[in-house]
Amino acid sequence: MNKAILLISCPDQKGITAAITNFVFSYNGNIEHADQHIDFQSNIFFMRIEWSLETFDIPKNNIVKEFSPLAEKFNMNWNLYFTQKIPRIAIFASKHTHCLYDLLLKVKQNVFKCEVPLILSNHSQVAPVAKEFDVNFYEFPKDSNNKSIIEKEEIHLLKKEKIDLVVLARYMQTLTKQFISEFPNQIINIHHSFLPAFIGSNPYKQAYNRGVKIIGATGHYVTEQLDSGPIIEQDIVRVSHRSSLDDLKREGQELERVVLSRAVRWHLERKILIYDNKTVVFD
Amino acid sequence: MNKAILLISCPDQKGITAAITNFVFSYNGNIEHADQHIDFQSNIFFMRIEWSLETFDIPKNNIVKEFSPLAEKFNMNWNLYFTQKIPRIAIFASKHTHCLYDLLLKVKQNVFKCEVPLILSNHSQVAPVAKEFDVNFYEFPKDSNNKSIIEKEEIHLLKKEKIDLVVLARYMQTLTKQFISEFPNQIINIHHSFLPAFIGSNPYKQAYNRGVKIIGATGHYVTEQLDSGPIIEQDIVRVSHRSSLDDLKREGQELERVVLSRAVRWHLERKILIYDNKTVVFD
Amino acid sequence: MNKAILLISCPDQKGITAAITNFVFSYNGNIEHADQHIDFQSNIFFMRIEWSLETFDIPKNNIVKEFSPLAEKFNMNWNLYFTQKIPRIAIFASKHTHCLYDLLLKVKQNVFKCEVPLILSNHSQVAPVAKEFDVNFYEFPKDSNNKSIIEKEEIHLLKKEKIDLVVLARYMQTLTKQFISEFPNQIINIHHSFLPAFIGSNPYKQAYNRGVKIIGATGHYVTEQLDSGPIIEQDIVRVSHRSSLDDLKREGQELERVVLSRAVRWHLERKILIYDNKTVVFD
Amino acid sequence: MNKAILLISCPDQKGITAAITNFVFSYNGNIEHADQHIDFQSNIFFMRIEWSLETFDIPKNNIVKEFSPLAEKFNMNWNLYFTQKIPRIAIFASKHTHCLYDLLLKVKQNVFKCEVPLILSNHSQVAPVAKEFDVNFYEFPKDSNNKSIIEKEEIHLLKKEKIDLVVLARYMQTLTKQFISEFPNQIINIHHSFLPAFIGSNPYKQAYNRGVKIIGATGHYVTEQLDSGPIIEQDIVRVSHRSSLDDLKREGQELERVVLSRAVRWHLERKILIYDNKTVVFD
Repeated sequence: MNKAILLISCPDQKGITAAITNFVFSYNGNIEHADQHIDFQSNIFFMRIEWSLETFDIPKNNIVKEFSPLAEKFNMNWNLYFTQKIPRIAIFASKHTHCLYDLLLKVKQNVFKCEVPLILSNHSQVAPVAKEFDVNFYEFPKDSNNKSIIEKEEIHLLKKEKIDLVVLARYMQTLTKQFISEFPNQIINIHHSFLPAFIGSNPYKQAYNRGVKIIGATGHYVTEQLDSGPIIEQDIVRVSHRSSLDDLKREGQELERVVLSRAVRWHLERKILIYDNKTVVFD
Repeated sequence: MNKAILLISCPDQKGITAAITNFVFSYNGNIEHADQHIDFQSNIFFMRIEWSLETFDIPKNNIVKEFSPLAEKFNMNWNLYFTQKIPRIAIFASKHTHCLYDLLLKVKQNVFKCEVPLILSNHSQVAPVAKEFDVNFYEFPKDSNNKSIIEKEEIHLLKKEKIDLVVLARYMQTLTKQFISEFPNQIINIHHSFLPAFIGSNPYKQAYNRGVKIIGATGHYVTEQLDSGPIIEQDIVRVSHRSSLDDLKREGQELERVVLSRAVRWHLERKILIYDNKTVVFD
Repeated sequence: MNKAILLISCPDQKGITAAITNFVFSYNGNIEHADQHIDFQSNIFFMRIEWSLETFDIPKNNIVKEFSPLAEKFNMNWNLYFTQKIPRIAIFASKHTHCLYDLLLKVKQNVFKCEVPLILSNHSQVAPVAKEFDVNFYEFPKDSNNKSIIEKEEIHLLKKEKIDLVVLARYMQTLTKQFISEFPNQIINIHHSFLPAFIGSNPYKQAYNRGVKIIGATGHYVTEQLDSGPIIEQDIVRVSHRSSLDDLKREGQELERVVLSRAVRWHLERKILIYDNKTVVFD
Repeated sequence: MNKAILLISCPDQKGITAAITNFVFSYNGNIEHADQHIDFQSNIFFMRIEWSLETFDIPKNNIVKEFSPLAEKFNMNWNLYFTQKIPRIAIFASKHTHCLYDLLLKVKQNVFKCEVPLILSNHSQVAPVAKEFDVNFYEFPKDSNNKSIIEKEEIHLLKKEKIDLVVLARYMQTLTKQFISEFPNQIINIHHSFLPAFIGSNPYKQAYNRGVKIIGATGHYVTEQLDSGPIIEQDIVRVSHRSSLDDLKREGQELERVVLSRAVRWHLERKILIYDNKTVVFD
């Protein structure tokens, strides 16, 4: 469980795979996973490489320095992660608690490797769930008037708690540009539709009114534009004329937690690269 | 194979099921299928009832007259069909022939019970396929300037040939209001996206650019508003960052023919009721 | 919420739908749902009819008596349920608690209309979950030697508690013929494979070794023959060579709870008819 | 379109990815795709690497010789393919022609890159389809008495025609051990069930009788044991109590052609590695 993970994207160039794998190999690292992808339309190369540090000749603290020349040569965007550093996530929730419960259970049962230092909501309804799982709960009653001020407190709290990832688990409020810019590619939302269909509020109502035969859910990174950030995962379930709006909501909730849970897990396992408002997911 | 099918919708009222089933029963009809549905939000009752005419006491030509008083009492929208009357469909096609081939094969192999008196296209490319299946082919080279005039000829031909259903099998032209109004709820289109996502042209390109993880296809009735008519059927297939635009198109084509084929079959089997820009499909 | 539900199966006969709907209508019942199905291969007629008792002229306690002549005439198997009678379910669980949690949450959040008077296990591990949801917990440490004796105690407890449905929520023990015969069509199990593939123990291991590209889960009624009772619901998820055995288990657990939850809900809503080791599910 | 593809499997060892990518890079090959996988349970390393030969310094005919020392060092199973060598496939068909039609159409429309020198059947029914697509047709009326003798003629024909892949497109006869051993990992079959459920004949009948809620199709390599070879692809479709046996067959046929078509395409694109009666599919 003492591993390094490199996520790399750069212009596609001859010799790049060889160069990266050689770097790990020449210092005695044992590669456990290596995935790569080329987007031929954009000519971008992507790689995820995971290796054991047990036998690696470069001390952890020096890897960045040692890898930098290679990264510069190939003009890489890159991030280095260590599996010993357990990510810290903050869950934002609202009245619907099915996603919140699901995430907390999966943390408790070690399906996710992460810590949850805090749950945050604009409702006190969530408090008992937080208590049940022994997680600190913060109520921030936001409205359109005080949103900007309250968000500053939220940002302060998240920074103080060294939060790596914010998960919006059916959090019904939009976040401001200011908040989002503090956590680039670090906020995951579950939208209860098959995006880009039914952006905005009440997607099940919209789907019901449109008479669709399939409903969906979408896990995505949050960007400034509502429900339009990079899609991480989507899934669907069939419905029919027999399905009432309540049926859609109930079946949809099953989807939401499955889809959000996959998106969060892949993020925590450093399997996602983002580019061009899309994701590469090395599942 | 000598059966009657009634499709009924009306305001939900006490005693309606009993009244309809009694009508059939009291004249010695043997009910083979009876499906009903209530949309509680709109308070509309729907029924499809299919019975054998072998033992039915009312002669075929009198059924409409005999049923009318009941229909008026309950304020029904209703249609009566006889399975001995084989529907006649016209297929409109364009460069992509996978859906056209699929429909013609299914007619040939008796998966569909219908006749195909004609195939119509704005390209001569389709001609060899028509010939292969011994179907009359008509080329109508339409463009934005002559569309209205050419459509009049098309309408004339379709009426002359007593066409019951027009199937747009990846026909790349939009139809005018005038054309659509001649065939209300009698034109089925396959749109190569999961509607209402990616309305309009190049939906696979749109899907590729949005970075979706699932693509879809939608079979729907054509109404004046582009890609916005009642949805009959939808289906999907998973894609990933590994999928190129060509992969999306290829996988999508498999979906298109499956979805279009289900939509056409249900229409031909008189299993679809339309209301409120939605469908009830008694599959 | 004061309704009656009739589940009926009998040989298909002329006039049966009319007779049943007339019965309800003639006593002023308002039919809210009526579904029927004919298995033409076996010539069996199935019906589920649900009507409001608010305006119904026959008092609840007399309905059985009043309906009996009709039932006899058509040689019906039939059951009458009242929605005011809340079903009581017992959950049998073992080490894996994801299904147990899911069921308890859904009861708590009123997705299911039922009471859970007790949870039963052969492990004490389940006790804290029971406590969390304020449900009585009983530990019955069974093994192959004492199974028959312990089961008698279990049966006694279930009868005393007037249990209507036993749910095996990943309960890892098989039940004896004796136990099963006490609760005919009243025991639902979740099997973690796409039955009839991978009957018996370790289905994920079996699936992994066979190299399947899709895994499944099956909710079914328990009969004497292992994993061979009437199937209520199945669902699947795609896997690949990249999926380890642990991935299969994790993805499978998501399926299990969704599938079990649908099966239990349909049972509680009296939407399931059983015949010929199959189910008719009026979803 | 002038590329080389290497498929490699061997015991997992340190430095293997680096060694292979270096080989290509050091001779000026431009890697276009590189996929790898490690089965940690069996400790086997798999790789598919595809590179352009335009700039590659080693002439085509020498690549095997130049790569051999590396292959020996790492104890590789390996195969080298050139995309300029178009594979030649023989299709074996029987009464059901939907898969045959689908394959021929995809060859004609360049979805598959391959040649089809011949179609072979034990029925003359297939002859018109072969003629329609201008493919040679051979009728070999086999029965249990003459199977061994007739198969020798078939093998002779296939060898003479330099066939690379035999596709059993709903071919209803089993092949003998003798035949199969002549084409190891070169025979693909479509089985009309979700294997390992419903092995053998009449799988739709078996599925119907078992009352499953989902049916499937499986594309697999043929080995001596009936329907038990390495699975390449599977897919499913939902069914219900409303589905007759004929419905299962019709819906199943849609699946069969999609699944078989994917399996054949992946084989032709050299994306499949076989080990331990499983497949790695670098899709």
